Amino acid sequence: MCVVRPVCVIGLGLIGGSLLRAASESGRQAWGFTTSTVDAEAATVDGYTVASEVSDALRQAGDQDAIVVIAVPLPAVDRTLGAIAAHAPECVLTDVVSVKSPVELVVRQTVPRTRYVGGHPMAGTTSSGWAAGSAGLFKDASWVLTVEDETDLEAWRDVARLVLDCGAQIVPATAAGHDDAVARISHLPHLLAAVLAAVGADGGNLSLALAAGSYTDGTRVAGTRPELIRAMCEGNRGPLLDAVDDALGRLGAARGALASTGSLGATVEAGHQGWQALRDYRGTARPPGRIDLSAPDARETLLALGDHGGRIVGLDGDFALTG
Amino acid sequence: MCVVRPVCVIGLGLIGGSLLRAASESGRQAWGFTTSTVDAEAATVDGYTVASEVSDALRQAGDQDAIVVIAVPLPAVDRTLGAIAAHAPECVLTDVVSVKSPVELVVRQTVPRTRYVGGHPMAGTTSSGWAAGSAGLFKDASWVLTVEDETDLEAWRDVARLVLDCGAQIVPATAAGHDDAVARISHLPHLLAAVLAAVGADGGNLSLALAAGSYTDGTRVAGTRPELIRAMCEGNRGPLLDAVDDALGRLGAARGALASTGSLGATVEAGHQGWQALRDYRGTARPPGRIDLSAPDARETLLALGDHGGRIVGLDGDFALTG
Repeated sequence: MCVVRPVCVIGLGLIGGSLLRAASESGRQAWGFTTSTVDAEAATVDGYTVASEVSDALRQAGDQDAIVVIAVPLPAVDRTLGAIAAHAPECVLTDVVSVKSPVELVVRQTVPRTRYVGGHPMAGTTSSGWAAGSAGLFKDASWVLTVEDETDLEAWRDVARLVLDCGAQIVPATAAGHDDAVARISHLPHLLAAVLAAVGADGGNLSLALAAGSYTDGTRVAGTRPELIRAMCEGNRGPLLDAVDDALGRLGAARGALASTGSLGATVEAGHQGWQALRDYRGTARPPGRIDLSAPDARETLLALGDHGGRIVGLDGDFALTG
Repeated sequence: MCVVRPVCVIGLGLIGGSLLRAASESGRQAWGFTTSTVDAEAATVDGYTVASEVSDALRQAGDQDAIVVIAVPLPAVDRTLGAIAAHAPECVLTDVVSVKSPVELVVRQTVPRTRYVGGHPMAGTTSSGWAAGSAGLFKDASWVLTVEDETDLEAWRDVARLVLDCGAQIVPATAAGHDDAVARISHLPHLLAAVLAAVGADGGNLSLALAAGSYTDGTRVAGTRPELIRAMCEGNRGPLLDAVDDALGRLGAARGALASTGSLGATVEAGHQGWQALRDYRGTARPPGRIDLSAPDARETLLALGDHGGRIVGLDGDFALTG
């Protein structure tokens, strides 16, 4: 049976702050820590428990066998893991960092005795910090939880329960599978938005005066704080390079066809089919099912579900409910 | 003084249909023609006058000295101009096609005696056809009207009055200036959306399951009907090739920097500055001004206004009111 554990959130920005709120609202004991005095003060004013030292927050997590959530940007993960190694070396550990293989690697090296489940909620806004968060941020969002050979499936269930309590649905994936996917559907969109915003602005005020929906939609995420875009994109270097190469290949082919034959037929049709694929995916009803998490092939079954675009929407004892 | 002319709209899809409605609602006599029996029937049912032959619609325009609006896709412009040459060869003529230099060129060749003013409303949805239109589609939209050495400024005023009556604001530009700008802020966004939608769908259902706001925003316009995207992008080949080359250069530089140094700093900062430029442009209050349309340098003054991102928001006798 899964355990409803207390939650210790390290990092109280948009995601960590929303998680602290959502976990508290679901009835769990929850507390946090952040190096940002602004976020710490705001969270305290809002009535949440914020430890004054990371060691205090983590010792309490160790004492209460809480789930520790790393909700700091990738460059700050190493420092946080050092504190976990010192103060809560065997905790159930998850994170909300937007890349999974690099975190998985450093967790295995630094805190090998933690029961780690990589996590990534696909939710956010272009704003950041505690003030931008809300308990409802994860409502109906997809939230990846990684499944690796080393994954402790009991800890996985405990973290899954927390994710479901936050209102999200769980997509199981390997760390590598996650990183390839987010390179395509999150990191590449941020790079293309940056490229488009630069090319548009190069056209001067006449161009900006004519900018309508296709441009404002296509450039919206270029308004995200540059350091956040850099942290997630640069942290997923290998998969992002593959996705950028795919995009360069397709854009180059479009350029060649336009210059030589004048036709953009292949490019535009492929784009329309891709757009339709998302529509079809979202329009497909998925009959409810059950995955026995205590079965010997539970990992394979979870990963097959994720590969097919399925989600876990509930837990019932040893079973994950899919839909 | 500008004349409130009747309006004859050839093509009753999203834009033409909205224009016929908006012109009628402003109190003008207006009628239309379309080769689409679906659109013709829908418009008739909605109470609008639709001629059964293009020759009838255009002869009436000639008789009443109406403004003729070409609201057909670029590939159908030639045929429409042939009918205008036969039935209304001296009319005040405008169009709503998304490229301006190719239309300007063929108008000068085919119907040199028309008083032509190129037009392009920066409004639309991903839907199309009469049913998708509305009288309010152009509310507060930017609407380019071209200014060339050959432009008859009295006809320009008459068309400007129609645009203002539709609720839009006028951005004066040369045909070439317009085409460069829309390549950057409309046609390139459509190509990048197509590329992104294809690369995302190549990642399969796991990728689609994780798609969130950055992806759905970045791919939205890939859902536009392929033939409409192709007509506007392929029709603006030269300027679009330049814009694609700029994008390829920037994306290639990002790829190189990520592979060699691991940094996306330059790309992300340039994108953020571009995003900020649009925000700054839209946030800048423009003090009201007046342009004397009968002055000898009226063309230069109008084009300078457009180059600086200014708009015309009203007409007062011989004066264009800017804001």
